Amino acid sequence: MAIVVQKYGGSSVADADKIRNVARRIAEKYTKGEKVVAVVSAMGDTTDNLLDLASKINANPEPREMDLLLSTGEIVSSTLLAMALHASGFKAIALSGPQAGISTDASFSRARITGIQPRRIIKELDRGNIVIVAGFQGMTKDKDITTLGRGGSDTTAVALAVSLKANICEIYTDVEGVYTADPRIVPEANKLSEIGYEEMLEMATSGAKVMHHRAVELGQVFNMPILVASSYVEKPGTIIHGGDNMEARNKVRGIAHDMDVAKITIAGVPDRPGIAAAIFLPMAREGISVDTIVQNASANNITDLTFTVSRGDLKKAMEIVKPVAHEIGAKECLSNSAMGKVSIIGIGMQNTPGYAAKMFQTLSEQGINIELITTSEIRITCIISEDKIKDAVKALHKVFELDKG
Amino acid sequence: MAIVVQKYGGSSVADADKIRNVARRIAEKYTKGEKVVAVVSAMGDTTDNLLDLASKINANPEPREMDLLLSTGEIVSSTLLAMALHASGFKAIALSGPQAGISTDASFSRARITGIQPRRIIKELDRGNIVIVAGFQGMTKDKDITTLGRGGSDTTAVALAVSLKANICEIYTDVEGVYTADPRIVPEANKLSEIGYEEMLEMATSGAKVMHHRAVELGQVFNMPILVASSYVEKPGTIIHGGDNMEARNKVRGIAHDMDVAKITIAGVPDRPGIAAAIFLPMAREGISVDTIVQNASANNITDLTFTVSRGDLKKAMEIVKPVAHEIGAKECLSNSAMGKVSIIGIGMQNTPGYAAKMFQTLSEQGINIELITTSEIRITCIISEDKIKDAVKALHKVFELDKG
Repeated sequence: MAIVVQKYGGSSVADADKIRNVARRIAEKYTKGEKVVAVVSAMGDTTDNLLDLASKINANPEPREMDLLLSTGEIVSSTLLAMALHASGFKAIALSGPQAGISTDASFSRARITGIQPRRIIKELDRGNIVIVAGFQGMTKDKDITTLGRGGSDTTAVALAVSLKANICEIYTDVEGVYTADPRIVPEANKLSEIGYEEMLEMATSGAKVMHHRAVELGQVFNMPILVASSYVEKPGTIIHGGDNMEARNKVRGIAHDMDVAKITIAGVPDRPGIAAAIFLPMAREGISVDTIVQNASANNITDLTFTVSRGDLKKAMEIVKPVAHEIGAKECLSNSAMGKVSIIGIGMQNTPGYAAKMFQTLSEQGINIELITTSEIRITCIISEDKIKDAVKALHKVFELDKG
Repeated sequence: MAIVVQKYGGSSVADADKIRNVARRIAEKYTKGEKVVAVVSAMGDTTDNLLDLASKINANPEPREMDLLLSTGEIVSSTLLAMALHASGFKAIALSGPQAGISTDASFSRARITGIQPRRIIKELDRGNIVIVAGFQGMTKDKDITTLGRGGSDTTAVALAVSLKANICEIYTDVEGVYTADPRIVPEANKLSEIGYEEMLEMATSGAKVMHHRAVELGQVFNMPILVASSYVEKPGTIIHGGDNMEARNKVRGIAHDMDVAKITIAGVPDRPGIAAAIFLPMAREGISVDTIVQNASANNITDLTFTVSRGDLKKAMEIVKPVAHEIGAKECLSNSAMGKVSIIGIGMQNTPGYAAKMFQTLSEQGINIELITTSEIRITCIISEDKIKDAVKALHKVFELDKG
């Protein structure tokens, strides 16, 4: 009998009615003769409410206690989902992360799964139970409770699917799949029936909110197919996989965008070795993620260094950068928090000339100034003003013919 | 260095300010050089809210899932209390029941502690940590989470005190100690500075709400002194202990009362063997606790059988009793849910004539009709009409000179 692992996000289990709906969907699968393991996130705003509660008591809580606190959210939703299945006459059991055998390292608030011992899950499946697993959590070898950080429940689901040798990992969420662009901006956007792991990774890291890149990476490493589909409507969704014919298709698959971009420019930097390290090492130590970095061609050994961070990190980044800039004799330090980025993504682009040129031309025709450009093998990204993002996404979606399905 | 185990109830940690207050009290003890282990209940209404949530999904939830759900309440309060201590600069760690090494049997919703392995607690104390333990919960040998039922967190605290060889178990609550009677009824009631385990047990089972009898029993078995005192004011409280001079004191120590009493009378019962079993076995199977049972002297082999249950159980009890009464040829089956009981309690009463007579006379002078009487070695209880309970408690408190301190 095949094992299927499903995951339902927080908005899918936000209240009693929604939990009953999820129970009904799981029961349908089970009734078809499949062994079902369902991973759940915390109900709706539970995690935010727990964070609020903690912040009233301690502005800077210990990560160990924070993880133990937050882990309760997924335990609540998993038990309620099991109760909903019982109420409909199905055999089900709720397991916390530790009960499900999920071991992690001790990096509280962003723990990595180090192993899964699925003995208990298999025993319960063999007893005919639907197994509900609290997502987002695990246990260290010292029996401390950890949480997995952003994208945690998706990661739990993919890791369990791998460990249980499931046929597929199904991620049910509040969107119907992966689209060629954000349908709120481009109403003509098409749902992709399938997408490659790498393309999906680029979509995720370029701002598409459907799935966190971490779970996609795990799927890619173990070649576990991942279905992304709606919790509410019975429609096909998108399958993320490592299929065969992707090298050949050679076209833009999707447009991703991200509004959460702030830009910092250090102007008039003396161009000598060690400058970049002097700037970026202290930021790394403070946990600030730097995204795009561009250094202009040096004239007279003076250069401009520009990079982007998320808006929430801008203030802290400037506090770190300003004294360093002063110390190394830079001319000035400028920031702009109203930036965004737009990306075109597709396997094979780098072997085919013209994609970049077409992208730049399209933006130019829209009167959009490109501030920074970065590329990967399967992605071209332009940093532009935030207020131009929507126009850019619409224009690129059209010019790369993604509206034609 | 001495270990002290403290317990704080749900009303003592009901919000952020109250949690800070508890943290301050714990920190005072720690600063005096004691090793502190603090057991906490769930915040205020948390448990009721979780029960409500579950009841919306399943009217009759599985006890296993219910326990896993409810156990989250104490984890939340214990982590927040640890965070409050951190915020004041103290070293503290929150442990769930399983992390604290508390093993139980698998009787979900009313599990019994089968053992405590306090290795982790001792390690954390040795590291200089204040250890906060989530009360009311434990883990079976199959790693399922259990809750201990009523009085659970008190039981956790006393069991930990025994296991850690603490000097004392301190129960902090919203009353200042054990009183000679309920101060809401008798304003002259005096706080007892000490009371024996057995007397406290009789007080608890006779309706005094201060502590559940289960934790007192555990204290008695292991001779662990228990202090009951206020979470809010710095006053001495009451010490429950097995002291030496109790045999000798030979007086009424307190008046307990209970308003939650319903009476069932089966009239005209044929007086033959097996009748009582026929009535009480099916009730036991349904989990209905029968308190007082009285059978009147038989005339012509026809007798009346009267017993009491808690009001919440009356409906179910009548559904069980009526067909049985019919089957055994009883005349009729009557019930009255507006009953109460009042008890006088004190070691040595049974060896001294006159206590019972004085009690009955006092009630008679108040015009109170005694419906049933039961006694133990250190207690005399009368079942009377609920609306007479307050008068009875006041009169007995005065006649046994408890107002004189």
